[in-house]
Amino acid sequence: MGQAARAASRHLASASTEAKSEALRAIADEVDQDRVAIKSANAIDMSNAEKNGIDQPLIDRLLLDDKGIDRMIEGVHQVDSLKDPVGEVTDLSYQPSGIQVGKMRVPLGVIAMIYESRPNVTVDAAALSVKSGNACLLRGGSEAFESNQAIGPCVSRGLKRAGLPERAVQLFPTTDRAAVGELLKLNDYVDVIVPRGGKGLIERIMRESMIPVIKHLDGICHVYVDEAADVRMAQDIAFNSKVEKYAVCNALETLLVHREVAGDVLPELAQRYSEEGVALRGCQSARQFVGAMAEATEDDWYAEYLGPTLAVRVVDGLDSAIAHINQYGSQHTDCIVTENYTRARQFVAEVDSASVLVNTSTQFADGFEYGLGAEVGISTDKIHARGPVGLEGLTSQKYVVYGTGQLRHR
Amino acid sequence: MGQAARAASRHLASASTEAKSEALRAIADEVDQDRVAIKSANAIDMSNAEKNGIDQPLIDRLLLDDKGIDRMIEGVHQVDSLKDPVGEVTDLSYQPSGIQVGKMRVPLGVIAMIYESRPNVTVDAAALSVKSGNACLLRGGSEAFESNQAIGPCVSRGLKRAGLPERAVQLFPTTDRAAVGELLKLNDYVDVIVPRGGKGLIERIMRESMIPVIKHLDGICHVYVDEAADVRMAQDIAFNSKVEKYAVCNALETLLVHREVAGDVLPELAQRYSEEGVALRGCQSARQFVGAMAEATEDDWYAEYLGPTLAVRVVDGLDSAIAHINQYGSQHTDCIVTENYTRARQFVAEVDSASVLVNTSTQFADGFEYGLGAEVGISTDKIHARGPVGLEGLTSQKYVVYGTGQLRHR
Repeated sequence: MGQAARAASRHLASASTEAKSEALRAIADEVDQDRVAIKSANAIDMSNAEKNGIDQPLIDRLLLDDKGIDRMIEGVHQVDSLKDPVGEVTDLSYQPSGIQVGKMRVPLGVIAMIYESRPNVTVDAAALSVKSGNACLLRGGSEAFESNQAIGPCVSRGLKRAGLPERAVQLFPTTDRAAVGELLKLNDYVDVIVPRGGKGLIERIMRESMIPVIKHLDGICHVYVDEAADVRMAQDIAFNSKVEKYAVCNALETLLVHREVAGDVLPELAQRYSEEGVALRGCQSARQFVGAMAEATEDDWYAEYLGPTLAVRVVDGLDSAIAHINQYGSQHTDCIVTENYTRARQFVAEVDSASVLVNTSTQFADGFEYGLGAEVGISTDKIHARGPVGLEGLTSQKYVVYGTGQLRHR
Repeated sequence: MGQAARAASRHLASASTEAKSEALRAIADEVDQDRVAIKSANAIDMSNAEKNGIDQPLIDRLLLDDKGIDRMIEGVHQVDSLKDPVGEVTDLSYQPSGIQVGKMRVPLGVIAMIYESRPNVTVDAAALSVKSGNACLLRGGSEAFESNQAIGPCVSRGLKRAGLPERAVQLFPTTDRAAVGELLKLNDYVDVIVPRGGKGLIERIMRESMIPVIKHLDGICHVYVDEAADVRMAQDIAFNSKVEKYAVCNALETLLVHREVAGDVLPELAQRYSEEGVALRGCQSARQFVGAMAEATEDDWYAEYLGPTLAVRVVDGLDSAIAHINQYGSQHTDCIVTENYTRARQFVAEVDSASVLVNTSTQFADGFEYGLGAEVGISTDKIHARGPVGLEGLTSQKYVVYGTGQLRHR
């Protein structure tokens, strides 16, 4: 599979925008044609999942009904509508020697995606890989095995219809755990691994493989309400950042509030959280402003609840807030709410996170909302892509140099 | 050292352009003031090197005379004159939700440099780190130990004069090999390792460390002379790419010539190489055009001679040339000489190397010549920086999002 992927990647790297677009349209069409087969395969996965007593949220993500298939198809068309990143040349400028030097965007080569239940990721990942000129190896979750095996042939036929190598997108034919171990050793055939799943899986990949990984481990996101915040805006942002969706990596996990405004912000906000069923855990100071708030321990500052629990801490100023975020945070997404120009700038400059926000909800940290069109995941690393990773994160650059016979004399 | 570097890196990341500039000017000044001490320390290294029977080229690179010190100082001023990369915001644009999203350039954090004999690298690396807002750990070669120990305090004093943390640049106080092993384990304190040295050293670092590495292993560079090449230009480029300097990673190692022009190009070029003392090793076809050319074996196509030896192969066309380069090359620097528009474009698109050149010498593949101002090394990886790595390669980006109270509704 690795060798076939490498060979296909060379072909795909020089495929025209038109051929890639044709492939995406054909993939969307094949999925549309194969609805019945995909739904029956998905029914098997669903019944197995119920038999195996899998959690309801996971079962929800597994379901592929007609609406879900429509969304998959729409996603492929959306990726098709994005600008082709490959071949873009930037910064082409003449140097004193007379050579003209620029940077050309090029595919990474072969991408391996390892993901869990949601079978729509199979089509998403295939579309993003093809559009960015990369071959890919896809390893979906065992719960979605039948669904993925039904989707895979649609992708292959779509590629074939556009004259691109069918093996540019290869689905693992097994959910054997040992197969992941083999994948992690394919240094020569895989350029990057994009895991989407539990922290355990990602840590295993990092430990066992020399292949670079685009990933984040945690999303411990903060909102800091500054003393110069618009109180109502701060409450709305803190509320939306937490409750719009709990189980996402960009959900608020710790709220920091300046001591001066804690009395204005916290009591009413705590009431709104309480009505929504969010349990608060606060520091001693925070508890003075809100009756019946549980006491936070040191562990709470490190917690990614991914559910209706929120840590609350009162701080003495911006420096304490930044220090808290840089110490306990996960460098994912952090927000300040303030009307103060200088402190907004300081927060943006000094918070060392992939996304730093002023006066808006942490839940916006997302490839679609950032205008990337789609994302394969979010990176909290500083090497290569950082933040939501779209087509550009799946590419690299090379230097192109145009001369007219220049020689170098050292 | 790791903890001190991490702490200093936070300070440096938010240092003003002015403070960093003041530090660089003070470092240059301190080196200038300490010439006598630096030269005496260097004399000890030189005498040890001679005692230990170290190779002449290595001894040449070790020498720090007044001219060498002048060049070091000039290098620091050059880095000082570059634009501060930190804080640059690009692509700031409004999204449909009303949030404004852009990318801000930020330092990586802590950079570890591991390098060999040349003591001037100590000052170069310090200057590049400070300018890019990074702290650094420097581990020089044992041959240059005394020189480096004399240069180190100049850097510390320069930082102190500018009010920046002295430990933003830390030199290893030992050349104990075990210390490198310890360095490789500092995942939490070192963001990237930049090794400059032998392939063995770099392979060891990759094997033993989970810290990302900016590196290249080989520089097996090619010039392909197309059938539509200007023959004289092709000869000049092939000659300059090889003989301008042998022991550099961007020197030509394998010359590929289209069969149609081999008779025009090779005999005269072979004569020029021969006068310069370059030994040729050719394929059977190449040997038909040049008398007394040794026969190349398969190993020669993989060879990085770094000396006056050159492999020569006659090929049947552009596709064969590209296939040869992608198979045997090291994805470092490769050049086509041609007047044909379509083939020039195809070569640039399909050769999968960090630098792809048309009609100019491979020896131009260099940070200074590319307009980066300086370089810490050359990367042949596709993840993060690729090609010559300057200030930008020592930085990352984060997303900055400016809102006016927007909330997300999924």
